[in-house]
Amino acid sequence: MEKLLVFGHQNPDTDAVTSAISFAHYLNQMGVEAEAVALGEVNEETDFALRHFEADFPRVITTASNEVSAVALVDHNEFQQSVSDISNLEVKYVVDHHRISNFETANPLYYRAEPVGCTNTIIYKLFKEAEIAIPSQIAGLMVSAIISDTLLFKSPTCTGEDIKAAQALAELAELDLEAYGLELLKAGTALENKSNEA
Amino acid sequence: MEKLLVFGHQNPDTDAVTSAISFAHYLNQMGVEAEAVALGEVNEETDFALRHFEADFPRVITTASNEVSAVALVDHNEFQQSVSDISNLEVKYVVDHHRISNFETANPLYYRAEPVGCTNTIIYKLFKEAEIAIPSQIAGLMVSAIISDTLLFKSPTCTGEDIKAAQALAELAELDLEAYGLELLKAGTALENKSNEA
Ligand SMILES: [Mn+2]
Ligand SMILES: [Mn+2]
Ligand SMILES: [Mn+2]
Ligand SMILES: [Mn+2]
Repeated sequence: MEKLLVFGHQNPDTDAVTSAISFAHYLNQMGVEAEAVALGEVNEETDFALRHFEADFPRVITTASNEVSAVALVDHNEFQQSVSDISNLEVKYVVDHHRISNFETANPLYYRAEPVGCTNTIIYKLFKEAEIAIPSQIAGLMVSAIISDTLLFKSPTCTGEDIKAAQALAELAELDLEAYGLELLKAGTALENKSNEA
Repeated sequence: MEKLLVFGHQNPDTDAVTSAISFAHYLNQMGVEAEAVALGEVNEETDFALRHFEADFPRVITTASNEVSAVALVDHNEFQQSVSDISNLEVKYVVDHHRISNFETANPLYYRAEPVGCTNTIIYKLFKEAEIAIPSQIAGLMVSAIISDTLLFKSPTCTGEDIKAAQALAELAELDLEAYGLELLKAGTALENKSNEA
């Protein structure tokens, strides 16, 4: 199979950016060539998380069909939140925790949605199901997204599965969840144009 | 949570009928009250499978909102293939192996699609992931659907996962896969109005 690009929604938040990184890693481990990219510059919270775990910043794209014919969407499914040329691409995978709307495909695909607080909570389950080890750096990025989307477990969308995943990921990343969580959210509040979209 | 009705598409085939039965059993084991129903009378192939495993025939419904407010769709997602009052219902779960089209929800949901030959292949994976034992009768119905949708592994949509699931399910049901498979498909060929839809 030809290489896939993996990306979250436009105006990316921490879950959009890091779920592309974690799901691309998952696909690579499953033998599928995939590169995580982003549909915009990272915000200050995500900048903090990427620097904290010494991760590479994803390449920013505005179109994908000039590079690939197939893509994986994370943390979104609605075409108007996706890459500008989404209609010219085959969506092979979706991993998301939002309602489904303005989305359709010509062919069968892999679609995994669960009503949890964060896309990375679902990706954590994918790693577990496939018995693939999560590297410490990726675990740190994944737990950052769960903290961000659930406001450190205080949002009404937070579920028991989010808390369980965050605790396991914090252990893998050797993090103090409460202390790091407050630091991360504080880094984010500097941002004026913060989106309400999880 | 209030009771869910679980059903496959209109003009039900063996996968539509039996994936409702197997997924309702899975939901019940997960603590979710669910009843498998069908959107039409079963065809001759499905009749053969239900009788062979001494299973109850599902109740046929034409509307659901008079009974419940939420439903689970199996083996389909397109609203025009679903229950007539689908727009008045909350879709809480979908398990399917078709393209996504004419489907949308107001709220986040559980959606599990994979590009495999049969919905019951995916449901087999759900049981495995949750470590829930599959009763022999339900295993027999599930393998019947895989045989039906893949024409005993000869269809172009058949994947290695379908074959693996069918072999494991045949063992649970104490079936000779080849002999039973030919019998099942033969029972189905008596039917004139057989649909091409998997
Ligand atoms: Mn998001
Ligand atoms: Mn999210
Ligand atoms: Mn079908
Ligand atoms: Mn089917």
